[in-house]
Amino acid sequence: MSEEVIKIAVIGASGYTGQELIRLLVMHQNVEIVGVTSRQEAGRSLSEVFPRLRGARVAEELTFMHPSIDAIADTGASVVFLALPHGVASEFAIGLLDKGIRVIDLSADFRLRSPEIYEEFYDQPHPAPELLDRAVYGLPETYSEEIASADLVASPGCYPTSILTPLLPLLKANLLKPASIVVSSLSGVSGAGKKADASLIFAEVNESLRAYGAPKHRHLSEIEQELSIAAGETVRISFVPHLMPITAGIATTIFCAPSGDGGDISLEVARVLEKAYSESAFVRILGEGNFADTKHVVRTNFIDIGWVVDSRTGRLILSSAEDNLGKGAGSQAIQSFNLMCGLPEESGLMNF
Amino acid sequence: MSEEVIKIAVIGASGYTGQELIRLLVMHQNVEIVGVTSRQEAGRSLSEVFPRLRGARVAEELTFMHPSIDAIADTGASVVFLALPHGVASEFAIGLLDKGIRVIDLSADFRLRSPEIYEEFYDQPHPAPELLDRAVYGLPETYSEEIASADLVASPGCYPTSILTPLLPLLKANLLKPASIVVSSLSGVSGAGKKADASLIFAEVNESLRAYGAPKHRHLSEIEQELSIAAGETVRISFVPHLMPITAGIATTIFCAPSGDGGDISLEVARVLEKAYSESAFVRILGEGNFADTKHVVRTNFIDIGWVVDSRTGRLILSSAEDNLGKGAGSQAIQSFNLMCGLPEESGLMNF
Amino acid sequence: MSEEVIKIAVIGASGYTGQELIRLLVMHQNVEIVGVTSRQEAGRSLSEVFPRLRGARVAEELTFMHPSIDAIADTGASVVFLALPHGVASEFAIGLLDKGIRVIDLSADFRLRSPEIYEEFYDQPHPAPELLDRAVYGLPETYSEEIASADLVASPGCYPTSILTPLLPLLKANLLKPASIVVSSLSGVSGAGKKADASLIFAEVNESLRAYGAPKHRHLSEIEQELSIAAGETVRISFVPHLMPITAGIATTIFCAPSGDGGDISLEVARVLEKAYSESAFVRILGEGNFADTKHVVRTNFIDIGWVVDSRTGRLILSSAEDNLGKGAGSQAIQSFNLMCGLPEESGLMNF
Amino acid sequence: MSEEVIKIAVIGASGYTGQELIRLLVMHQNVEIVGVTSRQEAGRSLSEVFPRLRGARVAEELTFMHPSIDAIADTGASVVFLALPHGVASEFAIGLLDKGIRVIDLSADFRLRSPEIYEEFYDQPHPAPELLDRAVYGLPETYSEEIASADLVASPGCYPTSILTPLLPLLKANLLKPASIVVSSLSGVSGAGKKADASLIFAEVNESLRAYGAPKHRHLSEIEQELSIAAGETVRISFVPHLMPITAGIATTIFCAPSGDGGDISLEVARVLEKAYSESAFVRILGEGNFADTKHVVRTNFIDIGWVVDSRTGRLILSSAEDNLGKGAGSQAIQSFNLMCGLPEESGLMNF
Repeated sequence: MSEEVIKIAVIGASGYTGQELIRLLVMHQNVEIVGVTSRQEAGRSLSEVFPRLRGARVAEELTFMHPSIDAIADTGASVVFLALPHGVASEFAIGLLDKGIRVIDLSADFRLRSPEIYEEFYDQPHPAPELLDRAVYGLPETYSEEIASADLVASPGCYPTSILTPLLPLLKANLLKPASIVVSSLSGVSGAGKKADASLIFAEVNESLRAYGAPKHRHLSEIEQELSIAAGETVRISFVPHLMPITAGIATTIFCAPSGDGGDISLEVARVLEKAYSESAFVRILGEGNFADTKHVVRTNFIDIGWVVDSRTGRLILSSAEDNLGKGAGSQAIQSFNLMCGLPEESGLMNF
Repeated sequence: MSEEVIKIAVIGASGYTGQELIRLLVMHQNVEIVGVTSRQEAGRSLSEVFPRLRGARVAEELTFMHPSIDAIADTGASVVFLALPHGVASEFAIGLLDKGIRVIDLSADFRLRSPEIYEEFYDQPHPAPELLDRAVYGLPETYSEEIASADLVASPGCYPTSILTPLLPLLKANLLKPASIVVSSLSGVSGAGKKADASLIFAEVNESLRAYGAPKHRHLSEIEQELSIAAGETVRISFVPHLMPITAGIATTIFCAPSGDGGDISLEVARVLEKAYSESAFVRILGEGNFADTKHVVRTNFIDIGWVVDSRTGRLILSSAEDNLGKGAGSQAIQSFNLMCGLPEESGLMNF
Repeated sequence: MSEEVIKIAVIGASGYTGQELIRLLVMHQNVEIVGVTSRQEAGRSLSEVFPRLRGARVAEELTFMHPSIDAIADTGASVVFLALPHGVASEFAIGLLDKGIRVIDLSADFRLRSPEIYEEFYDQPHPAPELLDRAVYGLPETYSEEIASADLVASPGCYPTSILTPLLPLLKANLLKPASIVVSSLSGVSGAGKKADASLIFAEVNESLRAYGAPKHRHLSEIEQELSIAAGETVRISFVPHLMPITAGIATTIFCAPSGDGGDISLEVARVLEKAYSESAFVRILGEGNFADTKHVVRTNFIDIGWVVDSRTGRLILSSAEDNLGKGAGSQAIQSFNLMCGLPEESGLMNF
Repeated sequence: MSEEVIKIAVIGASGYTGQELIRLLVMHQNVEIVGVTSRQEAGRSLSEVFPRLRGARVAEELTFMHPSIDAIADTGASVVFLALPHGVASEFAIGLLDKGIRVIDLSADFRLRSPEIYEEFYDQPHPAPELLDRAVYGLPETYSEEIASADLVASPGCYPTSILTPLLPLLKANLLKPASIVVSSLSGVSGAGKKADASLIFAEVNESLRAYGAPKHRHLSEIEQELSIAAGETVRISFVPHLMPITAGIATTIFCAPSGDGGDISLEVARVLEKAYSESAFVRILGEGNFADTKHVVRTNFIDIGWVVDSRTGRLILSSAEDNLGKGAGSQAIQSFNLMCGLPEESGLMNF
């Protein structure tokens, strides 16, 4: 095990993503948390804000700071995680990069290559278009080399990870007709964040199943960007997310038509996915006839993938499951961190 | 309010469908329950088996009988509900019809017009093919006249109701390309029945999201039968059901491509659905931009329908919600009962 | 069935109590809802605010008004339900009573006979002490005659109903040592109201069990008032409520020591409870060896009561279950309404 | 970090306790799992039976064996965990101890010092009374020295741990009147085990709150044994467990009367508990005015303890929370394992 210890800070750490990120960083043996910031929690200790962390030394000793670029730089952190709303994150990214601090941003600010598409989907001009070229999309199974040398990583959203991981290799291998892709995703409520919103209180969400956010969820922008790169052509998909009465987890079901260029589609899918992810510790290929279950991946960095072939209609149906706060947010950001720091990719993440 | 009182019996009444059916029949002012049967509960009173019904006079007085056609006939029931597994139901249907008793079957035995398709989907020869012509598919909004005069009604399954109600009028109006239809349905666990199965226990289902049963769920057979009739051509769809950690409710999301024969697809959908269901008390059209939520329909006979148009891909996305034990089973069977008996269709069903 | 129709209004109707009250009133055949008020929902129809009610004629036609005593009086309502916060309710009660309108208040404002105890528990002077003598505590099984002739009924809180219903008759019969009473209650989250509070959002409450509010929950004041009246002496109890990850329902477990004045304590309990509630349609005595389950009472006006004798310690352990929004709030208020209007006590409430 | 690696086996590993135990052992850096047995899963790999473990090398490689003492001995395990039903466990304990293998039994077989009390509570003669003297009750905070040198550890039940941890130091310090103790515990459903039982299926447990098992739950026997030892006199308590619709976690609320021998009871409680657990990494003292929440301890080995003083009745009210499968079963057994093997007590258990 590596003895190296890297100093990090987390900005905007009081939400669910920040909480999961910190929970994992506390247990990461190559990490020293030297700073956490939160406007609303400034002055309180980590363990007061996150009672689950009571008993961890750093959680008793570390106190939330008001967010300030100088104060963060003064902590000596060499890598900073941004768990801030989009639009706000970029401001910190600029300042920190200027000071030579590497940044892993969990917001949407640097995920898109096009400021126009950012503006289309986020209803505001991009706050730092000059940084877009410098940012790497933080999907470690796809961009591991770029991430390793990046100083600005844009960690993907929860839905995109669950959709891109099964689809990217299949599109690269020309196995699918891009225009046929239809996605139904189910997400736990933590994906909506930790906010005082009457529509999110228990009695509103419990015993409720409902679609929302279609047809133009913000995550579509990064999903289609990456699908298009893989397919070598512009891809538009239909995507319907659903809000589910569970805390964490995303299950995604993808319907698509094979391109007909391969042979037995199921064998081809197996071959392509197994090859694409043969080196990836966190992508678990369940094989044909299996559907992924969020229950087996929550609180891990794993993403499970299965599929069936619907021979009656000719469609391929893919199924994936991940933790929206884990592989879909916090632990995936740590995976990028490991790559950036030359640590084994699995460091601090081999949790079951 | 009609003063008429009709004697009924429920066969196989100890499961979730039987339980919901009886709960509603106990409160139905034109119904007298004269018999309930259950092999495993024989000898126990209704209120012992369903503690929720304690305090209802009939529940204290009525005792579960062993199922026997003669015994049921002796109760004087003129209509009998069958809440039995497929394959078993038909045996009772034959005997009861022979005695001049009208039958509402909640199993799959009489839903399909073709015994071959029954055998394909249910892995056994049809147990009573001679009755198929006599049976009416019990979707009251579509077959109200046939139901009114039927003596054998095959009440639809839970998924089919949620899929057929939005699609049938649109297919009849040639608004959709049938081959484009893709369905993702989410169902509460009660749909799997009340059985001692380790995969259904709380800790297995709670905090779990997963697809199952695809690509050839048994309900596809009746769904495609009715879609094909509406479309005037053979329709094959892709259908993925998901098991959700809630007790009751089905939310269905349907992706499909407009045929292009109409004008503004959203206006056409609104026009066709509103016209089709203008006389239907239980179909609530939410209009464009709205998604149906199971929370608002559980324990009712309502089915809610909304939609959006995905202009980026040209698809129409329909959303429906119902109670799988209500409009998807028990209360829908009572709706057919009302029609069969000449009662107002809403009798005993206007619950919110 | 009575043909009489009484015009009513509901003030402060947009919370969970108001919602359940209105849901039941919509189905009550002797009720015409002529007014509903809500500051925040003014101008919207009932069915917009409560989508579950879509399809009920009154819900489509009736629009939320700004609350004003004159406007309410103009609706012609002869009985008004107040579903307002404590402190606010009394202001409306005064104005409405002045206009000769009978009032059923679901807040705490008129439950206590002593303005001093009100101030002790609610941290503010009583807003209308002159009305306290006029108010009747709305526990229909205990005060049916007083309720029938009252023009101001203070409908009890959810915890009190679950604790008082089993205990009052036993204390009146001198079967228990009052000082020995210890109560542990479990409540669904809807008891905390429909408010934008981050501590109530799904991911905070789900998969969480916790006590709160002890040792001096506000409801203790009315609980001890009524226990003391029944016991004929001042009673102080220990009471710990717990917040449970379900939507609705309260389960209460009461530990107490028999006074030793009777014979076999279990037989005495059975005798006393059965006699006390022999005329009560909504109190279901489960008998010794049985524990009440919220599952069988939610969405009804029933309260179930069971008990065991702990012979090893000599304690009696009582168990009750009710719906906190039903028998603990909305439907109990309607039960009082029925008594006030000379309707059968069960009108509109015999739901299972 | 210790480099030592100890070979272990788990017998009866397919239930929830076995599953949690193995999950933790897989991640324990001083452990090599060399055998797992299960009659019903024999021949299947660990990762097939526990899909969550896919990706862990040992889970892919290790296959469930039929349970046999010789086969287990042949694996080379020096410590064996028994996750078997009571009555069955002792048979394996005898055989393994004979072969010089140390045993940690998670069943009830060796928790009681008296075979008569075992027979009274478990309705069968004790299967191996000769071993009772040799067994150590595996509550590490109380019996750490005895555990360190034991070859047979009886790991406590889930309810006992949640009740004993707050009470033992207080009784030892004579702060409480033993006869006054009344306990209300709330447990997640996993406590009932992974079995095909219709009363445990999702739709039966969801949205349900109910007491059960009182007044003489089996765990009372070990609870009262240990309380009596601490108090120096025979203690009998009232205990009511409740089944809660969550997967894991126990919240316990204890009502008791101070003995009056100390001064300010809250200060005394704080002083005694903090002293008793000053060396204990896993007992977190929340202090007065705080209630423990299962949400903060599930999937950890922590137990949280808070309290309030009910000055109106003179009672002390204690609150604890733990994971019934963690500190209440699997991780607590590993804590004993660490002590037995001379490893740091926290090895493999510092999870948040």
